[in-house]
Amino acid sequence: MKVRIISSLVLLIILSIVLLLFDTLALNLVIAFVSLLAVHELLSAVGCLQYRLLTALSLCFSAIVPFLSIEPVVHGMPVICYLYVVALFLLLLRHHQQIHVEQIAMSLMFSLLVPFSFSTIIFIRDQQGIALGIFYIAVTLGSAWLSDTGAYFSGRLFGKHKLAPYVSPKKTVEGAVGGVVVSEVLMLGIAWLCATVAEHFGAPIQIHYGRLLLIVPVLSVISILGDLSASVIKRQYGVKDYGSIIPGHGGIMDRFDSALMVAPLVYLLSQYLPLAEVIG
Amino acid sequence: MKVRIISSLVLLIILSIVLLLFDTLALNLVIAFVSLLAVHELLSAVGCLQYRLLTALSLCFSAIVPFLSIEPVVHGMPVICYLYVVALFLLLLRHHQQIHVEQIAMSLMFSLLVPFSFSTIIFIRDQQGIALGIFYIAVTLGSAWLSDTGAYFSGRLFGKHKLAPYVSPKKTVEGAVGGVVVSEVLMLGIAWLCATVAEHFGAPIQIHYGRLLLIVPVLSVISILGDLSASVIKRQYGVKDYGSIIPGHGGIMDRFDSALMVAPLVYLLSQYLPLAEVIG
Repeated sequence: MKVRIISSLVLLIILSIVLLLFDTLALNLVIAFVSLLAVHELLSAVGCLQYRLLTALSLCFSAIVPFLSIEPVVHGMPVICYLYVVALFLLLLRHHQQIHVEQIAMSLMFSLLVPFSFSTIIFIRDQQGIALGIFYIAVTLGSAWLSDTGAYFSGRLFGKHKLAPYVSPKKTVEGAVGGVVVSEVLMLGIAWLCATVAEHFGAPIQIHYGRLLLIVPVLSVISILGDLSASVIKRQYGVKDYGSIIPGHGGIMDRFDSALMVAPLVYLLSQYLPLAEVIG
Repeated sequence: MKVRIISSLVLLIILSIVLLLFDTLALNLVIAFVSLLAVHELLSAVGCLQYRLLTALSLCFSAIVPFLSIEPVVHGMPVICYLYVVALFLLLLRHHQQIHVEQIAMSLMFSLLVPFSFSTIIFIRDQQGIALGIFYIAVTLGSAWLSDTGAYFSGRLFGKHKLAPYVSPKKTVEGAVGGVVVSEVLMLGIAWLCATVAEHFGAPIQIHYGRLLLIVPVLSVISILGDLSASVIKRQYGVKDYGSIIPGHGGIMDRFDSALMVAPLVYLLSQYLPLAEVIG
């Protein structure tokens, strides 16, 4: 537990540094790094790591996606995507006795979904600016991590009914409900904090608290869905943790799985149903 | 052989009707239909058809992609993509004892690659107009099918050295070379025909014959690569043909596999290295 808390604090310090450099290429680099690690862990879990070239290809593609909004990459993206798919099938043809089409499909899926999901944070920053960008990143990570943490403690206190016994035996219905309640309450506080800080820095934003109240429970549920999806992959391959890079938590995927489905949803909200707006 | 030729003629007649209605929604509908059949055949080959909901989801998505350039769909696409991925993982969680993550990955891969590949024909039409659109469709299907046919006959006449004995035992190196030569010669004729017809209809286009000469062999090789990729999937699952919808040819995938990798490349050429331009 002590290791877990220290790791969380270190993670929060790194996050603060990223937020300080939010408007620079540092954000793209950090998201590329997190994507690389996450895809590497997923490929390792499903037993694809032994195919070196396949892994190298998928990791290269994963590392490029977070730079999608930068000039030379945005124009080259259709060519990059085409070359990537052709290279995958060339590899399948060349090593058809070792590599199976299922492995190609999984490599493609992970290297597509994970970096695109994380990169939506960059897309929001590039489209909405720093103040709203930081607010939405707080909504994403806040609702994902607060649901996790809230569920962990509520589950320990009140947990009785298993949520998904096979996929994630420790999760309880009471924990999930507790996670939703905790993230609902704390997210309102974090949103207020974002607005206060933004005003302090002369970039005031107006939060739509009503929408936020309605949306946060949805984000909590979606975060549990992301978490369970990552768990079911582990179960199907008999893997316990995705890695050990974050002491007490496991791999990057063990810590960020709940954010994977939340991030793109927050991006869509920023486009179609904004949770906050710049004043003036 | 007789059945094969009659089928080819019927296919060419259908193609002519599509070309007559090229500037209407008919093209989108035909491409949606071809995509649906192709994805259905692929899912059937890899044994995913037994998962009804998974199949239904993938087919729905495949049928939507060809309408991507139409107003309501183009704006809804990010939401559609997100809902599709979330639905796939919900399905995996709900039926984690029957459905494996590999099946999710393959359904996602086929329903993404096949309709997007075929839809590049629509993207070209929408961006470049009718005359250039028809020219590029002729380049796509011409180079794919002429390579096929040229390789078939050259292989029968001169075939000695196997090209890919395990993946596609009937293909020979001599056939492949013959296919490249046949498509090179005939494509020049087809291009000239396109230019003449376009001028007749008062929409003259200028063909860059030099570029075409250089590119057609590349397209031929890529068409063989597409063909072999489709074959390796069949081999790995012990399937002989993808279907029997086209008598003498097999399934839609057996006839269109060679065009799958050519179509997106022709789209990229139309963007970055045009093979023809509208005059005036």
